[in-house]
Amino acid sequence: MSTDDIRTDAPLVHAQTVVFDEPLALELGGELPEVRCCFETWGTLNADASNAILVCHAISGDSHAARHDPEDLPGWWDGLIGPGLPIDTDRFFVVCPNVLGGCRGSTGPGDVPAGASQPYGADFPRITIGDMVEAQRRLAEHLGIRKWRAIVGGSLGGHQALQWVSRYPDAAQTCVAIATSPRLTSQALGFDVIARNAIQTDPHFADGQYYGRDKRPDTGLAIARMLGHITYLSVAAMEAKFDPDRHDPRRIASQMASQFEQRFSVGSYLAHQGQKFTTRFDANSYVTLSLAMDLFDLGGTRLKLMETFDECTCDFLLVGFSSDWLFPPSQSREIVNALTALDKRVTYAEITTDAGHDAFLIDRDMATYGPLVRERLSMPSDSPESTPVHLTLAEESILDLIEPGNSVLDLGCGQGELLAAIAIRDGRASGRLMGVEVAQENILATAVRGIDVIDYDLNAGLPAFIDDQFDVVVLNATLQAVENVVELLDEMLRVGKRAIISFPNFAYRRLRDDYVVRGRSPRAPGEFDYAWHNTPNRRFPTIADVHDLLHDMGVTIDREIYWDMIDSKNVAIEGDPNLNADTAVLEIHR
Amino acid sequence: MSTDDIRTDAPLVHAQTVVFDEPLALELGGELPEVRCCFETWGTLNADASNAILVCHAISGDSHAARHDPEDLPGWWDGLIGPGLPIDTDRFFVVCPNVLGGCRGSTGPGDVPAGASQPYGADFPRITIGDMVEAQRRLAEHLGIRKWRAIVGGSLGGHQALQWVSRYPDAAQTCVAIATSPRLTSQALGFDVIARNAIQTDPHFADGQYYGRDKRPDTGLAIARMLGHITYLSVAAMEAKFDPDRHDPRRIASQMASQFEQRFSVGSYLAHQGQKFTTRFDANSYVTLSLAMDLFDLGGTRLKLMETFDECTCDFLLVGFSSDWLFPPSQSREIVNALTALDKRVTYAEITTDAGHDAFLIDRDMATYGPLVRERLSMPSDSPESTPVHLTLAEESILDLIEPGNSVLDLGCGQGELLAAIAIRDGRASGRLMGVEVAQENILATAVRGIDVIDYDLNAGLPAFIDDQFDVVVLNATLQAVENVVELLDEMLRVGKRAIISFPNFAYRRLRDDYVVRGRSPRAPGEFDYAWHNTPNRRFPTIADVHDLLHDMGVTIDREIYWDMIDSKNVAIEGDPNLNADTAVLEIHR
Repeated sequence: MSTDDIRTDAPLVHAQTVVFDEPLALELGGELPEVRCCFETWGTLNADASNAILVCHAISGDSHAARHDPEDLPGWWDGLIGPGLPIDTDRFFVVCPNVLGGCRGSTGPGDVPAGASQPYGADFPRITIGDMVEAQRRLAEHLGIRKWRAIVGGSLGGHQALQWVSRYPDAAQTCVAIATSPRLTSQALGFDVIARNAIQTDPHFADGQYYGRDKRPDTGLAIARMLGHITYLSVAAMEAKFDPDRHDPRRIASQMASQFEQRFSVGSYLAHQGQKFTTRFDANSYVTLSLAMDLFDLGGTRLKLMETFDECTCDFLLVGFSSDWLFPPSQSREIVNALTALDKRVTYAEITTDAGHDAFLIDRDMATYGPLVRERLSMPSDSPESTPVHLTLAEESILDLIEPGNSVLDLGCGQGELLAAIAIRDGRASGRLMGVEVAQENILATAVRGIDVIDYDLNAGLPAFIDDQFDVVVLNATLQAVENVVELLDEMLRVGKRAIISFPNFAYRRLRDDYVVRGRSPRAPGEFDYAWHNTPNRRFPTIADVHDLLHDMGVTIDREIYWDMIDSKNVAIEGDPNLNADTAVLEIHR
Repeated sequence: MSTDDIRTDAPLVHAQTVVFDEPLALELGGELPEVRCCFETWGTLNADASNAILVCHAISGDSHAARHDPEDLPGWWDGLIGPGLPIDTDRFFVVCPNVLGGCRGSTGPGDVPAGASQPYGADFPRITIGDMVEAQRRLAEHLGIRKWRAIVGGSLGGHQALQWVSRYPDAAQTCVAIATSPRLTSQALGFDVIARNAIQTDPHFADGQYYGRDKRPDTGLAIARMLGHITYLSVAAMEAKFDPDRHDPRRIASQMASQFEQRFSVGSYLAHQGQKFTTRFDANSYVTLSLAMDLFDLGGTRLKLMETFDECTCDFLLVGFSSDWLFPPSQSREIVNALTALDKRVTYAEITTDAGHDAFLIDRDMATYGPLVRERLSMPSDSPESTPVHLTLAEESILDLIEPGNSVLDLGCGQGELLAAIAIRDGRASGRLMGVEVAQENILATAVRGIDVIDYDLNAGLPAFIDDQFDVVVLNATLQAVENVVELLDEMLRVGKRAIISFPNFAYRRLRDDYVVRGRSPRAPGEFDYAWHNTPNRRFPTIADVHDLLHDMGVTIDREIYWDMIDSKNVAIEGDPNLNADTAVLEIHR
């Protein structure tokens, strides 16, 4: 399933419709005299209405997010929503409304306003993502839902989820925003402008009053859709899809005589997708929804984004996709950086994929990020204890140095074992615990333990965090793999009141012997067990080296713990650790 | 100057026109009964017609590549063409023709065919880049030019340059292809298809017979141009250009009442650029030229590209731009990889810039790549001797190991000193000399010595080269910075009949003392003079380590040279080099 195949032209046999008579005042002025909302639900609302999840669709989606039964037509998020799936309909009551301004059952430009003789057309008022949220609030009230267990959406759906919690900080327990952004890039905005220009200059657009006429602005709408399709795919995905038969286009089954060029396989595909779209979507709705996206702006600076999310009480999951150039991962990071600076609970993963923006709808990528969604929706009973935790001796030393209730940032947190051990030890008295990692499998492993973790390259410093944000910042067995050592230590001591670093000591007796006796690069069990030519380490500090550097940096060492794990089998070292210890743990502050 | 500002609507006061009566048979069938060519020239053709340079323009360019005098209107490559500039009009006779199928003086769809009553319009035959080259050949013959000193072009102009030399292998001494590709990506092709769809479905397109009518397909052409503009800019460039006043569009001086949306600053810009384009460009020409680009296909595999360029006798310069996503640098590399495998003379630089595809027209980027063009066009008298060469002792050892006339590939060639020293020593008897580098300033420094160099990350192996291509492959003082040591050594021994490696010995006596006596990471003058926490080195081999590894890899060491440059001041070491030498030079083969 990808955006190619989303079929929303089928009858919405499971949809319900509700009409709210109260006029809706719009953010940019004007009002809608009434609001009709078409929606579908899955699962059962529980007695205290605490298990409701709002799912928000993207620009060309609709309320049919998932199959209701095996015979049902496919939905656009079948891999995510259903019995036993990450958004588990055995457990949750899932609600997906067609968006305000759409053309699949909810109030939109194709409606005839009360007392009028023709539909709104281009006179449909300019709406915002905020107005969409207001319409959804009425639906929530109607369904008896005071607080959403979660609001979940991708792309424009992600915009809605973010708008909900920024406007109503207590509206949800969890906000899941996938392949989305605080606002569009200028590039994406430019593409939208061109798409609207194509629609609105189509002579059959007729100022939006084409309803009931012979001709509709199908040409402009098809061109808009073609443009959208290119932006949903990555350059690599397009190469794989169209290059093998570039000059010899496949015949597409439903292929009709077309006014559009079908010379190249990509042309034939675009013609097909463009024309198909005109049979199921309304041009005025496309203009309305794309403009709402373009006007969406939670903030262009971190400060502005921090104001936007300041009062939110929910936790967050953000997911970006490496090859998404329409909503690039850097835009998800902007939101993440604001949320971390606000000390909100947030997990962020950047999924490596060639699928581009479309990835949020693609089964394979859904299988990767689905477990993150599942974890964010898990109950408190699904606690970190469920996954076994094994600490190294150095990690146990670090654990001992962390007082109960301390807030802890673990840089290069691996699979989150240390943070999970703190969570288990401190239980409900735990301080804020957060990991930073760069390897996708580690991020996923940490997140599914229920530990917040963000995808981040330590070599870029710690711009996501503010001064003195954590009681303790940990860098465990990672110093030797860092490129910018001094910069990172500075950043740790800026972000943490204290820092704890552990590292292998390359002046350990046995390693010195390798040089002197064997004349070879040192090698020993554990962290030292790599050949010179393929070690992932790039720094080979001794304890004396690190002492020298910390002294030069004006950093105070508060506590020092040294271990000989190799030769003496886990013995604490008191005398001449630079010779006798293979591992150092230092607690430092500035 | 960028594509925004190219103004080609001015009268072509310096243009000449020549008409060739002989019919031109077209590559895809059909013919043009005559070919008119509009062109401009700069400088003077010398007596043996050996100083002529053909400059080929991009899709919306024309013959006015540069000012003819200070009062003249700006040209689109003023930073590159002129007295004393890289394409030096004091030295060269420069010719820039308007392309076949264009609308600025050469034969195109706006012409009325002999005996007809209306212009070709959409009946203008489908032409190819090859047909453009054929028209230019007639011009060359007309001007008395049997062989071009160089053919130079960017984007579509680069396609023409590449087509010239692949079809006529002896047509030029040098081919300079900038921001170009062997064929379009499927993504770029998709954008072109949409642009043509916008033009051809404009009701005023009238099957291309809009000439002389009240209305022309200006809407479709403007939309095509808007789309083009986005693809010429990078996402970062657009952010910088449009974000500061995103919601508050500047008033553009020439702004006219527009049918296009001008709500956002990017929209106002696109509306302006789109409309401006309709006043100076013909829609049928746009369709004709973009289709010729889309049909252009020198090969989708290296083997096919090797067939394409197999017989070329020219040397090549290719330049890509890091943020160009329309003609991404990876596409220039495809050509480079084929040329290197064919052992053609080629230099390739990827210029780091935010300017996107437009970079080839932007003064700042022109100032960066201009010297590469200047060097490729230099005379044999501008020899490497002109730049002083200083060799290290290890480099002198390597030089001694290379026999006169050997072909040499130097990996991580730095500023090209070793290769320049070989060129000076061997003079006309030099074998093929080539460098590989990743640092832009080193690539530029090597290239301006007249040494071929390609921009390449050694960690990706040496896929550009074929088995046994060079007599000697050198890795000088670079082993310690390589991530994939074994893979690279394997690749060197595949590509070279022999390899020579030099590296610092981290078991050198004084370094061992650092560990044993001082308990600190070793440090010494030269290659060892880095602190543990910020060294660019990531491997710390000893001579014994390298011997062990080569033995394990089944590699034979033919010659070994060891130096103590630090303590004994440049003394060759005979006994126990692993202890006494700070530098090793090994000649190896498999």
